[in-house]
Order: sequence, then structure tokens, then C-alpha cells
Amino acid sequence: MLRFECDYGEGAHPRVMELLVKSNLEQTPGYGEDHYCDTARALIREACRAPEADVHFLVGGTQANFVVIESALRPWQGVICAENGHINVHETGAVEATGHKVLALPAKEGKISAAQIREACAVHYADASHEHMVQPGMVYLSAPTEFGTLYSRAELEDISRACHELSLTLFVDGARMGYGIMAETNDLELADYARLCDVFTIGGTKVGALFGEAVVITSPLLKKDFRYLMKQRGAMLAKGRLLGVQFTALFQDGLYFQMAEHADTLAMRLRRTFTDKGWPLLFNSFTNQQFPIVPDEALEKLGRDYSFSFWQKVDEKRSAVRFCTSWATTEEAVDALIASIAAL
Amino acid sequence: MLRFECDYGEGAHPRVMELLVKSNLEQTPGYGEDHYCDTARALIREACRAPEADVHFLVGGTQANFVVIESALRPWQGVICAENGHINVHETGAVEATGHKVLALPAKEGKISAAQIREACAVHYADASHEHMVQPGMVYLSAPTEFGTLYSRAELEDISRACHELSLTLFVDGARMGYGIMAETNDLELADYARLCDVFTIGGTKVGALFGEAVVITSPLLKKDFRYLMKQRGAMLAKGRLLGVQFTALFQDGLYFQMAEHADTLAMRLRRTFTDKGWPLLFNSFTNQQFPIVPDEALEKLGRDYSFSFWQKVDEKRSAVRFCTSWATTEEAVDALIASIAAL
Amino acid sequence: MLRFECDYGEGAHPRVMELLVKSNLEQTPGYGEDHYCDTARALIREACRAPEADVHFLVGGTQANFVVIESALRPWQGVICAENGHINVHETGAVEATGHKVLALPAKEGKISAAQIREACAVHYADASHEHMVQPGMVYLSAPTEFGTLYSRAELEDISRACHELSLTLFVDGARMGYGIMAETNDLELADYARLCDVFTIGGTKVGALFGEAVVITSPLLKKDFRYLMKQRGAMLAKGRLLGVQFTALFQDGLYFQMAEHADTLAMRLRRTFTDKGWPLLFNSFTNQQFPIVPDEALEKLGRDYSFSFWQKVDEKRSAVRFCTSWATTEEAVDALIASIAAL
Amino acid sequence: MLRFECDYGEGAHPRVMELLVKSNLEQTPGYGEDHYCDTARALIREACRAPEADVHFLVGGTQANFVVIESALRPWQGVICAENGHINVHETGAVEATGHKVLALPAKEGKISAAQIREACAVHYADASHEHMVQPGMVYLSAPTEFGTLYSRAELEDISRACHELSLTLFVDGARMGYGIMAETNDLELADYARLCDVFTIGGTKVGALFGEAVVITSPLLKKDFRYLMKQRGAMLAKGRLLGVQFTALFQDGLYFQMAEHADTLAMRLRRTFTDKGWPLLFNSFTNQQFPIVPDEALEKLGRDYSFSFWQKVDEKRSAVRFCTSWATTEEAVDALIASIAAL
Repeated sequence: MLRFECDYGEGAHPRVMELLVKSNLEQTPGYGEDHYCDTARALIREACRAPEADVHFLVGGTQANFVVIESALRPWQGVICAENGHINVHETGAVEATGHKVLALPAKEGKISAAQIREACAVHYADASHEHMVQPGMVYLSAPTEFGTLYSRAELEDISRACHELSLTLFVDGARMGYGIMAETNDLELADYARLCDVFTIGGTKVGALFGEAVVITSPLLKKDFRYLMKQRGAMLAKGRLLGVQFTALFQDGLYFQMAEHADTLAMRLRRTFTDKGWPLLFNSFTNQQFPIVPDEALEKLGRDYSFSFWQKVDEKRSAVRFCTSWATTEEAVDALIASIAAL
Repeated sequence: MLRFECDYGEGAHPRVMELLVKSNLEQTPGYGEDHYCDTARALIREACRAPEADVHFLVGGTQANFVVIESALRPWQGVICAENGHINVHETGAVEATGHKVLALPAKEGKISAAQIREACAVHYADASHEHMVQPGMVYLSAPTEFGTLYSRAELEDISRACHELSLTLFVDGARMGYGIMAETNDLELADYARLCDVFTIGGTKVGALFGEAVVITSPLLKKDFRYLMKQRGAMLAKGRLLGVQFTALFQDGLYFQMAEHADTLAMRLRRTFTDKGWPLLFNSFTNQQFPIVPDEALEKLGRDYSFSFWQKVDEKRSAVRFCTSWATTEEAVDALIASIAAL
Repeated sequence: MLRFECDYGEGAHPRVMELLVKSNLEQTPGYGEDHYCDTARALIREACRAPEADVHFLVGGTQANFVVIESALRPWQGVICAENGHINVHETGAVEATGHKVLALPAKEGKISAAQIREACAVHYADASHEHMVQPGMVYLSAPTEFGTLYSRAELEDISRACHELSLTLFVDGARMGYGIMAETNDLELADYARLCDVFTIGGTKVGALFGEAVVITSPLLKKDFRYLMKQRGAMLAKGRLLGVQFTALFQDGLYFQMAEHADTLAMRLRRTFTDKGWPLLFNSFTNQQFPIVPDEALEKLGRDYSFSFWQKVDEKRSAVRFCTSWATTEEAVDALIASIAAL
Repeated sequence: MLRFECDYGEGAHPRVMELLVKSNLEQTPGYGEDHYCDTARALIREACRAPEADVHFLVGGTQANFVVIESALRPWQGVICAENGHINVHETGAVEATGHKVLALPAKEGKISAAQIREACAVHYADASHEHMVQPGMVYLSAPTEFGTLYSRAELEDISRACHELSLTLFVDGARMGYGIMAETNDLELADYARLCDVFTIGGTKVGALFGEAVVITSPLLKKDFRYLMKQRGAMLAKGRLLGVQFTALFQDGLYFQMAEHADTLAMRLRRTFTDKGWPLLFNSFTNQQFPIVPDEALEKLGRDYSFSFWQKVDEKRSAVRFCTSWATTEEAVDALIASIAAL
């Protein structure tokens, strides 16, 4: 069985493991106050060209999302996001558990627009009884989205401008940030996120680490006392250096981007294979997640040798499925899959 | 200016005020443990033919909704409701502030169906990663709905059966319960709510009281320690007898139902006037809220002498508006409005 | 049975009831946006000599306390209070239910000092792992305290200065504010509270209203969006004018202060009676609550004709009890009690 | 510098690292549903002689504590613990952030007793207004305590019996469980915890793992839907097998206990050294944390070559400090410290 069903099935890139093993018996202070975390912070600030940014390391994505959101909102505020946003559908109400409503907007290809955000705020404040409704306080985007699609630089600039004008905090969830940055259609760099967002994450879990999300805060308002909230919400790792070690390995010598490029290149080969075969794509993704619409008969045959995720029934005879590549996917596995598809 | 914009513009029915004044200097225990509350509880149990029900008195509707919902849900559970449900749109995220997601379903005429509820649960549990999503724990209905429409007995029985089978708590928000019970198309009595729901409210604020919602709990599971939660959430009135006094006045000699019937009768006169005039109704309401679609020109003229609520733009030349009657609306005011419409 | 067990056993002062009845059929906007609330706000601003203050009306004390506290704190902050503070012991964890720890300090006569507050903050920030502890964010005082005692002007000025220097919000719970203001030993006016606190309440429930607490906000930081939180927490009364009407009646022609003076005067007569009888006082209160330490035998006899609250066992033969006077206590009742004590 | 200031300064035991490296490129399902987690669960159930227990793996101690506590309490309930309990002082109000008050009791040597628990409940329910106070719902103990002390079997049995009779959930935080089990004065086994508690944790972070706490649930009531709450609170690790791998390594061939025994033996050598030197012990600990009261002059000298934690000033010339041993402490380091103390 060759596995394409997700991008977090393996452990960490060998260079990450190496540094973990090498540093294992070293004694350091806990809670992220060690020299590995300092090094990793410096590397990330440099990669983002954001020398003033605060960088914190959290263990997981759900945790990073709700801690960041809670840190920014007042009790009566909610967070605007696409209806398919991870926080709206796949985190068991983690944001609501901190007391805040998720204000879901209809999405196109998994994305929302500056115009929608402006409209949501206009409608809110136009209502005489707006105090009876949740006040929009933040915008949450995923980049890439849950569907593998990307915001363009122009789109993100528009959204950033809208947020600024409307006093909304802009937060980008970059759980798969690397795969977005290295996509062939992408025109955004880390430095753009640092420039346009108040806070964003750079995901490690799905891009070569055992675990870990870097939270990059550029807004001065959000910096104060963030570590208190991390501790309160169980998001401050005792042996914090484990996160520092991993992000040091990822951001030294460009490993993070090399791994992502590897995965994206393989994903583009799959994309071409699917479209050449006449299988339409449910979403127009240029990142490591591909969503072909495939005859059920073909899926049945492929399923004997390859794993993938069922996404949705499209019509009587076809279903959309998800194939993921990752830093750990091999050329050989992709070759085999392509050959099998050709042979159908 | 004759006012039809809402059903809570005045104070209380004179008989309510009378009993408040009469009992004013009496000394009683606080927090709902007085003889007026006991009397009111007995009257409500009798009206509901539910001798075993627990009855609590809370000050307001938002409060009653979130306290009831919080009392029934486990931290990872959410409450299913119509997208237009009051808790979803007009309570500033009060339910989310207690940590629970509102699981909104598309509605027809403001209502959801047993089939939708079954489907939502089936979809939830069919998903292999259902633990990553909010678990449905409760169903919230409004009766009448925010649009003045009513669940039929058959519909409520279906929903009750579905909830029972799916281990969902069924909660009916009866902020305007009286106006529903007395509607000419209604086929549900208080006793039916007591029989079919786990918990429901009987609204006083909009039906003749200064304030107050009676929470009627029939499910043994929900009875235990409810008063602790009331106190914690600021929902236990120090001079609780004020609520007992008011509900005693409302439920003695059928005042509650007489007032509601009065309002519904006047609303039906308005309904006929609207349809006779060729103004379609946005919702098919037989209760005290009517939503005609009116030419903007006519609205402009009517607005000089009558107040009503703007609801939504329907097309270039017409808008839907809301006219409310209440226990306090006079025949004369309705006569005048009808005459003015005729004269347009 | 003549009742002295609490100060909220009756309804409202007749002048309050009169205005409620008189305004009953008037139609007004809801949610505190009516002219009665405006008038009451103006009267309270004037009484506080605080023309810039925001004034909101909430139904109850627990509600006022947790809404004010939640509005001021960040998620990782707690509120400093005396161990006997109402929020720490008698509100079923209402503050914790909003996510905030109550940081209780040992109290003398129910009061804490500026020195204790400074010490608590010093200890917090001196600890290298202060991020692992709840950050002090606010100070909560009761005036009068739960034991009837009073902060002096010098004490409150010290505390205010400490809070200012330490960036702590200062909140005074004035559930019995009137009885404090009119006490013979008091040297603080409403204007002092407005000058020295960021936010404080003026209680109506225990001083002549059916219900209602006025929240007076002087800190610009706390003013923004307070009404959103009121709505979310069920603390925005639909017929808000009921609160405006009552506070108008209370603050017109000084009724609030006359009632409080009446109660305090009667309480001082009781105080002298107790001490003359050789019954020590558990707390040195000059307000409407008196806590004599009485032989159990005497209590047993008094209990036949008078009600009072048991407070605590003091030794084998004596208990402390609480006698309250209120705006509603009559001279005759106090005469009778004094005579009965004399006759023991 | 030889370090004795805490027991989580290094990474993981080499055998843990080995298995992590060996399993690194294996593909497994996420979220704890892999075969390593299954193996680890089986090993722990066996070690606890609790074949029916549910075992979950969480990343950190704060997280484990608040998720377990939240899973067991109703909204109006609080958790009883020693005033020095970790949840009360060193988790930034994590329990309060889930809405629950920590009900702190005075402690002796860091421990509370069954009698205190019974008393707290008796006082609560004896109060006529107990609904105005937080209802005790759970008891939290640490074993060993934050001061290194241990509950005896008789004490734990008494507490368990009290909890059972009073319908309180009993939860033991075993962040340093291994060091307790292997202490020379200990008379409790893992199987006793499984028998006497409703839920307890076995800490990995401080006993040889990179991170990880095993939550062992024996109470059927607490088992249902626990994974939903884990996910909601960010406590479900994506690559859950990392926890399974580590606990497999720890519980295969008794590594967990060997490491703890090693640390305890070294701690006992330090204990004898301190008392032989005439330095009293602040707490009577037989586990890996030792708290000698040392002349400040001696501390000053020792501090040049050894690290330890300042605990508290005892008198003008002496301070209590904490020395920790761990699985990673070497014989040589202890020899050196003992020699240095002898040489003072």
C-alpha cells in the first residue's frame, strides 16, 4: 500500500531527528527560554524579514488557532472565516470553547474576499441593534486553504487593507505554509505575510517536523503577555527546546522550503496525470493537496494499492478524493501511481 | 404616532401591576423561595398538566436561553437550530460565550424538520473524524418562530421522536408562547410542549409582564442543581417574588391566554387587510407578528402616522416590514391603521 | 414576626412603585434607550459630579459584578479581592465562570489595603515564572463591605493610587452604597468614588428599588462596547425603562439618600442597644448591618418574635448574628426590638 | 555547572529516542489511533492491572489537568485541592479558564485529608444558601505532591471512600508518579491508583520522555466522549504515535520504574547528606525532590558549581532550596555535590 491520504503520516525529516538526538542530553531551561528557541526565532524573523516580530512555538494547529484568536478578541467579538475554515468545521468548536462565535462566510474555492469582509461589517454596523449581534473582531484565513488553493498577493493586500480600515485583526493560519510558498502559482513570500497580517503561523507538523507551529506576531497590540495565555491554555511545552530544535533544523539552510518544493513538484505531476486522464479537479489547487473527480470504478481499483481520502460524492458514478504529497513522498511512489492510473 | 414596531413597548397588564403594588410591602424570602413563586409554579404546572415539572422564573429571554442550553450540554456539544434562530443571530453570541457552538441549519418559514435533525446527526457520526467536529447535543426551536410561524403538532412530534432516538435534548423557546397557543391555526397546547420537550419556556416579557420567562423542565436529568447555574449566571433575581407575583397574575383566570387571543385577533385583521390590498406576506404567520411586502411609496406614507419595523428589501420598489400587535394594542389603533391602508 | 434578617425582603419604596405605575402604559424603545434611562443617567452623573461617566443599568448584583469584571480583564488576568468578597464566596463562581480566577487576600474587618495589593503584585512579578501564575488585573472592593464596614477616604485614595501605578482597574461594588454614604463615620461621597475608581456600582435592589444596579464607568478604556457584553450575558433588560424609571425615582429629590439615612439611624440605635447590653460587635459597622455577639439563650428568646441571620458560632454559649435595617424598617419595629432586648 | 534545579532539563531516555528514530519513517494513522498507542495502552493497563481502563495520551501536564477536570465537572462545580496544588498556583488559572473555581484547602506537608474533604462538603450543604456557592464536584491530589511528599495507602483509601460517599470524582495528578511509586516509604502501586481513583495521570515529561502524560480513566462515567474534549482543547496530538512510541519504550521492560528508582536512590543520598550536615528538611520528602534549609553562606558557595531552585526564605540566615534528581542525574554529579557539601 502506497499512502497518499494525508501529509502527516510519518515522523520528521531525518535532519530534524538528527538534531533532536544530538541535543538530547543537553540541559536547558524549559518553556521556550532556551538557546535553540532563540536561534529558531532569529531564523524565522530573518526568513520573514521581520526583525521586530515576536515568535512563539506551540505544539499543534488547533491550539495555535484558538490561542491566537482568544488573545486578540474581546469577549463579545467573533472571528470571520470561510465556511470551510478549519476552525469552523474541524476543531470540535475550539474557538467557541473560548467563548467566541465563528462568523462563517460563503467561500469560493475555499477563499473569502475583502468585499465580503467589508460587507459583513457594513451590515453589522448598519443594524440599529448591532449590540445584539456578535461584533466582527478578526479575520481568519488559511494559506493554503483547506482545499489547497491560494490567496494571491493582490487578494491578501485587499483583505489586509480592509482589516486595517475596519479595525479587524488579520490572522493567517499557515499550517501548510511551506506548500503554499513553493507553489508555482504563488506570488507571496513569508515577508508579505509579516507585512500584511497582524499574526500568522508557519506550520511544522505537516512540513517535516514531528510537531510544532510557529506563531509570528507583528502587531504590537498582540505581543503583550501572549506567554501567559499559552501557559493557561496548555500550549507552553515544558521542554520547549524540542520546538526550538525542530524549527532550527527546518529553517537552517532552507530545508523547510526544499521539502515543500519537493512535495509540490510531485503534486503537479499528479495534477497533470489527473487532467490528462480527463478527471476534472474539484478545486484548482497548485499545492500538495489534489482533489480529482474520479469514476468510482477507477477508485475501487486504485484503492487496492494506494490510499487516499474520500472527499465527497459528485454524481452517481464519480467521487472527489484527495491525494496528498508531502516532504516524505518518494518519486517512486508517484511514478507507480501514475503508471497505475495510465493502466486503468 | 400609533406604534406597531414591537410587542414589548409598554409595561405590564394592569392586573399584573395591581398585584405587584398590592404585594409590595409584604416581606418574603428572596431568590424564588416565596409563596408567590410557589403559587405561580402550581398554576403553570396545572396549565401544562405536568405535575412533576420543575418551574423556574428568570428575568429575560437571552438569559433563559443560554442558562437552559448550558445546563444541558457537555463541553464538546453544540445546539442545533434554524439559521434564523434567536440564539444564532440576536443574542450577541450568548451561547458561544458559554463555550458551545450553535449548529445552524437552513430553515423553511423559520422552521427546521425532524429529517434535517436526523440528517445532521447521521452526517456527524458517519464521519470517521467526528471527534474533530462539534457533537450535536440539543435541538433549539422557537415557537412561534422569529417569523411568527408555528410548528404543527405532527412536526413537533416528529422532532421529539427524533431527539429521543438520537439522545438530543429538545428545548423550545416560547418567548411568544401565548401568541402561538392562541393562533387560529395552532394545534398544540402547553401540555403538548410539556409532553414532547425536555424543557421549554413560557415568555412573560412579550405577553403582559414587566419581564420574566418561566422555564419548565420535564426531563429529570435537567432538574438537578439548575438553581446553582441560575445563580452563577446572574439569573436568580434577589426579590424573586416579583416573578412569582407576575406569573401568578398571568396564569390566574386565564389572563395570559386572553391577552394573547386579543393580539392574535387583531393581527388576523391586519393580515386580511394586507392580503386584500394585494400585499403578499413574506411569511405565512397566524400569530401577532405580520410581515407584509409593501410598496415603498405606501410605506413612506404609512410611516408618518404608524411605526413598524423594517425587515428587508424585497425588490426595487417593495420592502417587507413587520407589524406587531400585543396584549396592549387597542382596537382603535388597528381600526385606524386599516382605514389608512384602505385610503392609500 | 418582625423581620431583620435582610435588607431586601420588601418590594420598592412607594415613590418608585408610583412612577412604575404611572409610566406603565407609555410606549418606549427597549434596551435602555428610553427617556427614563436618559433622565436617570443624568441624575446619577450629577450626583457623582461626573459629567463624562457612562451609566448603565443592570438587573442584579451578581450580574453587574461579573459583567464589569469580564469587561476589564484579559483572559489570563484575575481579580484581587478580600477573602470575604461577595464574588469570592457568594456568587457560585460567577467570575470563574467567565474564565477568571479570584485572587483572594486575607482581610481585616472585611477590608484589604493598598499595601496588600502592592505586595501581591510585587510577589507576582518578582517570580521568574510569573507567566505560570494568574496576572493581577483588577481590584474589587465592596463599599460597604459584606460586614458593614467602610473604607475611609484615605484608604480608598491609597488603593486608587496603588491601582493606578500598577495598571490595575479599580472596581467598587456598591450594592449597599447608600447605607455607606450616609453612615455617621463615612467620609466618602459618590463623587469620590467617581474620582478614585475606574468603575463602581450604586445598588438599587437593597436600597429601595424592586431591582437594579447602576454601573458607573469613568475609565475611557472600559466604556467602549460595554452594551455588547451586557446583551451577551443576559444583562440588558428588554424593557430597560423599568430601570430608568426606578433610578429616576431614587435620585430625584434625594430619595436614595433619605432612605439610607433612615436605615442607618435605626441601625445605630440597635448598635447602642447591643453594646449597652454588653454584647460585643463582631465587626465595627456603622451601616445598616449589625453583627452582635449574643448569648444563645437570648437568641432563642428573641427568635420567637424577631427574625435575624445566624452568622457564626463564637464560643460554646454565644453566636454572632446579623440584624439588618433597611429603608422599609419602621421605627416601631426597632422600638419593639429594643424593648425586648432590655427585657431579657 | 552541575544541575539539580529541576527534573525536566534534558530530553528523553536514550531508549525512548531510539524507538522514536526507529519508527520515524513508518506511516501510521494520526490522533492516537495507531498501533504504538495501542501497545502503550495495553502496557499501561497491565501495569495498572486495570484491563477495563481507558488510556489517553496528552502532551503536557497543565493540559492533562484541565481537560480531565473539565470533563468531570458540571458548570457550577469546583475542584477541591490543597492550597499548594499545582492547578491552584502554577497553571495561570487554566482550570478557571474552563469556568471552574479551584476550592483550595490548607495543607499539611502539601497534603489534604479525607476529614477536610468531608468537612468542606458538610459546610457547603449545611448552608441554607448553598446554591450561592460553588458546589464541590471533584478532588484533585498530586502524588507525589509539589513538595515531594506522599499519600499513604491508608490516606488514599480514606479519601477515596469519602469521595465515593460524597459523589466527588477523585483525580490524582501523577506528573511525577514514577518517583512516588519507587520511593522507599511508598506503599501504593499503580494498581492502587486504578482501584481508588476515578482518573489519574502517569507523567512522562519528568520521568524520561520528551513529553507526554498518560491519562488513565477507570470511571465509566468519565470515559464517554473524552476524545472530543481532547480535540477541542488542543490536546490531541496530530502525530499521536509519538506518545504511543514513548510510552511503549517507558513501559516495556520496566524502564519507567528503573529510571525512577535511580533518581530516588540518588535523592536519598542527598537527603542523608543534608540531615547529617545538620540542615533540616522543609518537607519530609522521600522522592526525587529534596528541600533542605541551608545557611545562606553555604548556598552562596554551592551556587558557584551547582544549580538548584530557591524555594523560600526561612529566617535571617537560612533559606530553603530545592534539589531535584532525575532519571538523567549521574552518580558522579551526586558524588561531587556530596563532597562539596562535606567540604563546606
